Amino acid sequence: MAIEINKNLFRKIEHLVELQSDAAILSLLGNEHHADIAEVLDELNLDDATYIIKLLDSDLTAEILMDLDEDTRERVLKNLSAKEIAEEVSELDTDDAADIIGELSEERQEKVIFEIEDDEHKADIQELLTYDEDSAGGLMAKELVKVNENWTLPRCIKEMRAQAEEITRVHSIYVVNDDEQLIGRLSLKDLLIAPPKGNISKIYIPKVDSVNVNEDTEEVAKIMQKYDLEAIPVIDDNKVLLGRITIDDIVDVMKEEAEEDYLLAAGVSQDVEADDSILELTKARLPWLVLGLFGGLGAVFIMEGYEDIMADDRYRQLFFFTPLIAAMAGNVGVQSSAIIVQGLANDVVKGSLFHRLLKEVGLSLINGLILGLLVILFGFVTQMDINFSLTIAISMLSVIIVAALIGTFVPIVLDKRGIDPAIATGPFITTSNDIFGIFLFFYIAKIILGF
Amino acid sequence: MAIEINKNLFRKIEHLVELQSDAAILSLLGNEHHADIAEVLDELNLDDATYIIKLLDSDLTAEILMDLDEDTRERVLKNLSAKEIAEEVSELDTDDAADIIGELSEERQEKVIFEIEDDEHKADIQELLTYDEDSAGGLMAKELVKVNENWTLPRCIKEMRAQAEEITRVHSIYVVNDDEQLIGRLSLKDLLIAPPKGNISKIYIPKVDSVNVNEDTEEVAKIMQKYDLEAIPVIDDNKVLLGRITIDDIVDVMKEEAEEDYLLAAGVSQDVEADDSILELTKARLPWLVLGLFGGLGAVFIMEGYEDIMADDRYRQLFFFTPLIAAMAGNVGVQSSAIIVQGLANDVVKGSLFHRLLKEVGLSLINGLILGLLVILFGFVTQMDINFSLTIAISMLSVIIVAALIGTFVPIVLDKRGIDPAIATGPFITTSNDIFGIFLFFYIAKIILGF
Repeated sequence: MAIEINKNLFRKIEHLVELQSDAAILSLLGNEHHADIAEVLDELNLDDATYIIKLLDSDLTAEILMDLDEDTRERVLKNLSAKEIAEEVSELDTDDAADIIGELSEERQEKVIFEIEDDEHKADIQELLTYDEDSAGGLMAKELVKVNENWTLPRCIKEMRAQAEEITRVHSIYVVNDDEQLIGRLSLKDLLIAPPKGNISKIYIPKVDSVNVNEDTEEVAKIMQKYDLEAIPVIDDNKVLLGRITIDDIVDVMKEEAEEDYLLAAGVSQDVEADDSILELTKARLPWLVLGLFGGLGAVFIMEGYEDIMADDRYRQLFFFTPLIAAMAGNVGVQSSAIIVQGLANDVVKGSLFHRLLKEVGLSLINGLILGLLVILFGFVTQMDINFSLTIAISMLSVIIVAALIGTFVPIVLDKRGIDPAIATGPFITTSNDIFGIFLFFYIAKIILGF
Repeated sequence: MAIEINKNLFRKIEHLVELQSDAAILSLLGNEHHADIAEVLDELNLDDATYIIKLLDSDLTAEILMDLDEDTRERVLKNLSAKEIAEEVSELDTDDAADIIGELSEERQEKVIFEIEDDEHKADIQELLTYDEDSAGGLMAKELVKVNENWTLPRCIKEMRAQAEEITRVHSIYVVNDDEQLIGRLSLKDLLIAPPKGNISKIYIPKVDSVNVNEDTEEVAKIMQKYDLEAIPVIDDNKVLLGRITIDDIVDVMKEEAEEDYLLAAGVSQDVEADDSILELTKARLPWLVLGLFGGLGAVFIMEGYEDIMADDRYRQLFFFTPLIAAMAGNVGVQSSAIIVQGLANDVVKGSLFHRLLKEVGLSLINGLILGLLVILFGFVTQMDINFSLTIAISMLSVIIVAALIGTFVPIVLDKRGIDPAIATGPFITTSNDIFGIFLFFYIAKIILGF
């Protein structure tokens, strides 16, 4: 839907920028959503994009800036003066404003903050910049509607209306005491239904979920998801209400996290996108390939120990099966670790480690026996020596069991030690299982075939 | 936080169920959030869990049922009569009610629906059950607040209050015309701020995003994310307002999708969890391993063609490097395809296919040259023949380039043909690249070394 519109829009805009028809650009973009305009700007060249940003009103361009690809935003911001950036961030909620300023160099950060006119907005942004970006503080906005427990309902509604005008979305009204400590909440709906008389302290709900300002964002995401919250207040160690986190920010956190895990499982370090530069992509990919290289060279060393059997035509064909054994070890290991990593993230990995490993052995026995039978069938069809096909089948079965155990054991142990188990999937498991698989393969072959 | 509480709670509850101290259980669980109680029930044995479900009030247990693991829920539902299930779903919003009933056998579905007392609720659920679960219709709830454009504001507020009492969360008030067609929206906040006089038609916002009831859920998720929506109305082909989808449902869709992609990349077919049965896990894993087996056997055939060179101690060591070449081809292929799959999902794969492939060649040249140099260094240290190490390095470079091209090309082509490109990562790419890599390796070695 939107994608088709944007291709047309892109062509029109490119043409109008060339003609410098400002009025036509303004009337054309005036009806578009900022997310759609951002998509068009992502495609335009930098000068054209900057031209449009400078042309449009800052209440619109501020939202557009937030919607741009990080790369495009970085380049556009370089083309804007500190004063121009300050005007943009003045239009944004404090969390978005802090995110944009946080992307600038420290020197520019100071200049931009200096240019922000509204002192309260400035102070809020400065506070937000002090928090770790992976903490609740780094995610929260200062914009919220709060009322004092001692206020009467009419005063509450009056104050609330004033506060709400500044705020895009009101989820809950937070109730604080005289020390600014969070003590409860009111819902807009309750207020709409309740007859407006009496005191806040009589009608507020004293039970309110909250997170500490230093809580990890992934933990915040888990809590909001579990309790199905659309917003959660953020407090400090003294329970003083500092800000609130809304579900749309959590959606972004979840998406980023899922993407990182996905790429990590494929052997790509975090934080790259298809459109990044070759250099950045190389940095994300090369280390894992070097790891794979060392693994492969390790396998070379193991096989060198068996070079003699190449002279014997009863055994030499074993070498044809090394890629198969290595691939099987790698695949099984990645499967096991991915299921465990996913399970750990969802808290569905229950029972003892021993129980879990036992389950993997059972699973591997079934898979290994079926695959082993297929190998023996293959041997029969290609008229292999029966001892030889048995050797392949039995070593494959053993390799599958060991690979599954390693794939299960490593992420669980990493998790217990507080290391992100997602690192264990992908090339790490593949490589270690490759070496181990080849070692086991020749060792078992040596015992069965007796060379 | 919650996790610690739940371990204590679990022990206490288990003990109290044993003693059949109903009053103590009720007072203990009365203060807990339904999501926490569900976590405890997931850990209890089936009889204890059913005992508690039957003991608690249905307004609480209905929510608990929604929060249970799918497995636990399935087993608990088997222990409840059709009438008991009907009581539970009567307490739920229509979307959740339809989800629970949808999990039952068709025969039980009819019985449960028959037992639902509220006719409107019954009709709504029956309507929702007709939609595909991967469509907007399968995700939406019938609960929403709607007003007619011709109403006066006082009437609107009165009707709205009546409607809102039934609804957990009010995001927007939808405005319809006399034909029930969606024509705009009102925000609660606007209504709170606006003075209550005049007619709806004067103050509503005529611009409102909506999705068609047959729209794919992944597309709905993209739209809600892009436009930062907390709820979106669902309409039919005649623009008649049918229901609404809220962001919490989208969070679940996104999570499920990310998990499926992650597991698929690791060679595990969709829809399994660490706690599923061995049989289910085998079904999800074995097909990919069989694919790997065929790939490995394919490589055996290729190598058999080169069996003669095993007699020659100048060439036989080539066989030591096959796992390395295969692993490199596999790793590079998975990296390339994962980045493309991710990029396609985020619409950041721009420019022509040719441009994209060219970029991969550049990237592979850098990676391949560095890895090739490391191989030559390795050859130098282990006193390999220089022609031999050059052969390994050059074939590795070629294999890396080809693997990257395949890893890029396949998902883009699949995507253009409307097939989910995520299927292309993992074992599929690994296996085809394994075979292709080994083939290329010996072919290049033959040319360089001239055997």
